[in-house]
Amino acid sequence: MLDPDRLFPTDPAVRSLARDLYEGVRDLPIISPHGHTDPRWFAEDAAFSDPAALFVTPDHYVFRMLHSQGIALQDLGVPRADGSAVEGDPRKIWRLFAANYHLFRATPSQLWLDHAFQQVFGVTDDLNADTADAIYDHIAERLADDAYRPRALFDRFGIEALSTTESALDDLHWHKLIRASGWGGNVITTYRPDAVIDPEFEGFADNLAQFGKLTGEDTTTWQGYLAAHRTRRAYFKQVGGATASDHGHPSARTEDLPQPEAEALYGKARNGSCTPEEADRFRGHMLTEMARMSIDDGLVLQIHAGSIRNHNAQVMQEFGRDKGYDIPARTDYVKALRPLLNAVGGRSDIRVIAFTLDESSYARELAPLAGVYPALRLGPPWWFHDSYEGMMRFRRMTTETAGFYNTVGFNDDTRAFCSIPARHDVARRVDCAYLAELVATGRLGRSDAGDVAHDLSYRLAKQAYGL
Amino acid sequence: MLDPDRLFPTDPAVRSLARDLYEGVRDLPIISPHGHTDPRWFAEDAAFSDPAALFVTPDHYVFRMLHSQGIALQDLGVPRADGSAVEGDPRKIWRLFAANYHLFRATPSQLWLDHAFQQVFGVTDDLNADTADAIYDHIAERLADDAYRPRALFDRFGIEALSTTESALDDLHWHKLIRASGWGGNVITTYRPDAVIDPEFEGFADNLAQFGKLTGEDTTTWQGYLAAHRTRRAYFKQVGGATASDHGHPSARTEDLPQPEAEALYGKARNGSCTPEEADRFRGHMLTEMARMSIDDGLVLQIHAGSIRNHNAQVMQEFGRDKGYDIPARTDYVKALRPLLNAVGGRSDIRVIAFTLDESSYARELAPLAGVYPALRLGPPWWFHDSYEGMMRFRRMTTETAGFYNTVGFNDDTRAFCSIPARHDVARRVDCAYLAELVATGRLGRSDAGDVAHDLSYRLAKQAYGL
Amino acid sequence: MLDPDRLFPTDPAVRSLARDLYEGVRDLPIISPHGHTDPRWFAEDAAFSDPAALFVTPDHYVFRMLHSQGIALQDLGVPRADGSAVEGDPRKIWRLFAANYHLFRATPSQLWLDHAFQQVFGVTDDLNADTADAIYDHIAERLADDAYRPRALFDRFGIEALSTTESALDDLHWHKLIRASGWGGNVITTYRPDAVIDPEFEGFADNLAQFGKLTGEDTTTWQGYLAAHRTRRAYFKQVGGATASDHGHPSARTEDLPQPEAEALYGKARNGSCTPEEADRFRGHMLTEMARMSIDDGLVLQIHAGSIRNHNAQVMQEFGRDKGYDIPARTDYVKALRPLLNAVGGRSDIRVIAFTLDESSYARELAPLAGVYPALRLGPPWWFHDSYEGMMRFRRMTTETAGFYNTVGFNDDTRAFCSIPARHDVARRVDCAYLAELVATGRLGRSDAGDVAHDLSYRLAKQAYGL
Repeated sequence: MLDPDRLFPTDPAVRSLARDLYEGVRDLPIISPHGHTDPRWFAEDAAFSDPAALFVTPDHYVFRMLHSQGIALQDLGVPRADGSAVEGDPRKIWRLFAANYHLFRATPSQLWLDHAFQQVFGVTDDLNADTADAIYDHIAERLADDAYRPRALFDRFGIEALSTTESALDDLHWHKLIRASGWGGNVITTYRPDAVIDPEFEGFADNLAQFGKLTGEDTTTWQGYLAAHRTRRAYFKQVGGATASDHGHPSARTEDLPQPEAEALYGKARNGSCTPEEADRFRGHMLTEMARMSIDDGLVLQIHAGSIRNHNAQVMQEFGRDKGYDIPARTDYVKALRPLLNAVGGRSDIRVIAFTLDESSYARELAPLAGVYPALRLGPPWWFHDSYEGMMRFRRMTTETAGFYNTVGFNDDTRAFCSIPARHDVARRVDCAYLAELVATGRLGRSDAGDVAHDLSYRLAKQAYGL
Repeated sequence: MLDPDRLFPTDPAVRSLARDLYEGVRDLPIISPHGHTDPRWFAEDAAFSDPAALFVTPDHYVFRMLHSQGIALQDLGVPRADGSAVEGDPRKIWRLFAANYHLFRATPSQLWLDHAFQQVFGVTDDLNADTADAIYDHIAERLADDAYRPRALFDRFGIEALSTTESALDDLHWHKLIRASGWGGNVITTYRPDAVIDPEFEGFADNLAQFGKLTGEDTTTWQGYLAAHRTRRAYFKQVGGATASDHGHPSARTEDLPQPEAEALYGKARNGSCTPEEADRFRGHMLTEMARMSIDDGLVLQIHAGSIRNHNAQVMQEFGRDKGYDIPARTDYVKALRPLLNAVGGRSDIRVIAFTLDESSYARELAPLAGVYPALRLGPPWWFHDSYEGMMRFRRMTTETAGFYNTVGFNDDTRAFCSIPARHDVARRVDCAYLAELVATGRLGRSDAGDVAHDLSYRLAKQAYGL
Repeated sequence: MLDPDRLFPTDPAVRSLARDLYEGVRDLPIISPHGHTDPRWFAEDAAFSDPAALFVTPDHYVFRMLHSQGIALQDLGVPRADGSAVEGDPRKIWRLFAANYHLFRATPSQLWLDHAFQQVFGVTDDLNADTADAIYDHIAERLADDAYRPRALFDRFGIEALSTTESALDDLHWHKLIRASGWGGNVITTYRPDAVIDPEFEGFADNLAQFGKLTGEDTTTWQGYLAAHRTRRAYFKQVGGATASDHGHPSARTEDLPQPEAEALYGKARNGSCTPEEADRFRGHMLTEMARMSIDDGLVLQIHAGSIRNHNAQVMQEFGRDKGYDIPARTDYVKALRPLLNAVGGRSDIRVIAFTLDESSYARELAPLAGVYPALRLGPPWWFHDSYEGMMRFRRMTTETAGFYNTVGFNDDTRAFCSIPARHDVARRVDCAYLAELVATGRLGRSDAGDVAHDLSYRLAKQAYGL
């Protein structure tokens, strides 16, 4: 199924260059500094239950595409918010998936799935209605084998470091178990405080109360609230090995308000009386507070901005969050990041990594900003743009202004564990394809290209996230 | 003039792949589900008058480019709104066009015109000042031949179905004549109600009165107005074979207002007291009403949003609408389409096709939306983007997130009858070029590519529009 | 260091086509109709002082990239606003630059610098920490040679015409000296009146007073102020050979206000009481006034819109303007240019050249506007987009709608004198690469491509700017 020269340039001479560059980085360890795998997998090391539960039901890329052609989410086993019945037969779900596998033609999902089927599970046939059962049985049989348990796959995938993402309210139970287990895998957490920073988050007031309890700080006061963050960040560093925080906001807005104004806004947020504009301002201000804490504790600040969450109210009500209905929107960075960058952007002792879903900002805003502010780096192509074309656009639109060294290598950002090697392989191939083009058109020396390939595949991620 | 391998990739192996794919679709019948040809041509089947009237005067792509270099519209025979004199000698117009034909270098107009000159009329020389007269005479001679009458060309072009677009106030006279004539050509209409939906349309109040008369409904009331639409849509279906409605709004805004609010807004629209914001809200709400009617009567809902019409006030005053001065503007879809999509987007019994002139929305907004909402499909590259580069950008920016099956094949959207085969040929070539690249880079199987080529060239348009 | 086939397509047949086209334009004289070189160089013809002063300290592309990785501006010799000490040893600055030269991999800066090192100075080694001193010595030695003085280089570079840019308040002292010197080099000025048009410019009131003194007009009145512009424009034409004005505004907004409103706004601007909105409106109106003056005096009107200046307040305070912290922002043209275009856009006796930093406007707004308004032309890719990828995007996104003849050739827009041949060479190579692709894909005839290559490299710039 997989073309050994996939994603390389078509011109034979350039392809050969790309192949050489790729040979030099193909087997480097995987650094996965940002993602959403479940730490429980590595804590318990239990077998994955079945092919549908591994590949279909939890993967929003997969079920959103099937749904877009009229397949009901419940028929794919996606759980309902109220717990009422959904399809429970994994083989039936798998057959539906297989019969519609043509929908994924030329999508990154197909590339990731085929890679996992072939490279991880040794499947040799294309997936379709006819092969559905045989492939299901083949994968199910492998899953029963100890060699397909999470820790074994972690080792087989060559993962040197893997970050998960936990809410600031998470107790890091699984991370503690991983550490206590004596297993050598390097799995760390990331501090994600949206639930206690975003006044519009479900249960914000309760979250603050819990935040106070967890940290022993008085979150009814602004100073206590800030102290709670400091305490919790330290806990995430110490107990979960965190090297970064992560913030998923609808806009990239930052603010650097006078403390009395921030304090007053926090009061409003606490008692639920923020207007949407005030909620946005508060989130914006908190990014700058987080940045100031980063200067003290060294956590890298990641900003994932610009997703309009839960676009479909009915699906949100029936199935809840993260059901494929998060849609990117136009996002401003130039004015939005200015307050934070004016506060800390000139420093070399903090690293801010900005991600975007608005590609029009690559060449216009983010590359020019990252190409001058010492603190700012560009995250790799995110989400819908984590693809061949998305990666090529990213390099073509950022390199000339920001260079390579204001970027931070690859993030797989995935919940789909078996797609991790596929995703890093795609990133390495595309970067080598791009570098080969640069060499072939006299824009980069051959030897420099080899260094850069290594940097993009391995070193930059490790360095940017302090791994 | 025409390179037989035009628009194919330059790498010999990939070119050969593209050529093979193209061989498989080159001669498929043409499905033209949206356009602006004149049904009178097919009703009367009269000869076209002269080369200038066929190629220059009615084609806004052509006269806008000539005008951009300082040629007056009246010198190209473009009629004045007040009927005062303009150039009336077609040969003089043709000479002016020919002498400036270099302005079209590397534009789609040149490709379409050369294709029509060579393939439809058998012209063998390049057009320029020196060849102007000979080519004029050659084409004029052909036009006098019965084989160049509209119906003969329709058959020669291999058109299986052709939609025109008529105002909701049109009596469908020509469509009735076509049906009465016994001619077998499948020419249908499309329901275009802008004149009775847009409060800012010229003569809106009179239009509503006429709308009431045509339908026998009381358009002075909100319920009567909605009933008039239902009646008129049924008429367009029955008398003109319509399978779709079409809506050309300056923004993609939709609304789903409570009925009393919609009713009040209609009252204001009727008496001409809408503010611009209210007019926009009313148009937005009517899209959702149209969608609800579509669920009942099955008409496909097309939204052509984002053109700022009549940018030049002086040309508007002197020559009227559609004189090349419609300019695309930045257009939001994520927030704009939300009310309509929340109302009907989850259904599989309605099809909404969204077009855009803002390519920055392809990867950021439209592909993510069409890649999840069952009701939504992406229209092909529209207007200025109906070109090699425009089509390539469309595929590269939409396929990875929306796949192929949330798109609807090609629309030629043209007033220029003789450009229809050229335009479909360009679309087929570009799609085959893109598919060949996918195959050559391991992103699509060769056999799948053949299926997709057929789908994009024929099946998807037929299916999406119910033709 | 330089690949003789750099920037050409990789397919051998297309590369060969590009090479042929390039051979035809490589040695054409350079027309540089817009830039920021210092006329003093040509007036005094003194030797450049040292390699760091030539290549590092004045080049914001260079020092911004070094700074982005944490190198302090003062360590690169960038002068402080208060005159306090910065690094003064050019060799130390050069070593810092050389040791970090890898940051420029695959950027246009690297291409320009390598071209200058190799072609202008005969350097044969790659620059890095090891070669820093030897290359420094090599260049320093050349700079002491008369053959490396400004006028000698001007001749060696094959410059036929070079425009500098001076403030409306400049006395054109150096331009007068150039003319008085009897030297044959064609160096002219450009009228840049931002300091007396932008109410938010530092010292606006004083600037107006000085403007009155320089012109003998009463700038305390609106009529006197307009007369001062007319007088000063005539002075720039007569004394400095100006053929164009240039306007650097944060937005592309234009207005065409009734004269009493403009007069009242000028009153507010004069006494410093404009709100930001009023300041923007005044700037917008003045563009239309400038356009009306252009009809009388023939100066080409250049609009460079969309840069948010001095994004970092601390750097602005410490080092002043133009320190790499100007960041492009999203810019609207469709609504913004409408008042000016409605006033003069239909005329053929004025030329307006629009530049953008917002590439999303190329295909959506600027190409459609330039493809219809007789007065409007598109400037070449500007600033961060003056690069291989930027130029390719420009051609791919504008040609199909605006053609070649609504563009104006290349602008180097540089302060870095030694980069002029490199920049024009890059532009010629990229245009030839693009044209070769068009020929190879049947979108342009081979012979037409040769004509177009010549037009883009030479004729269009000369014609558009009246040089």
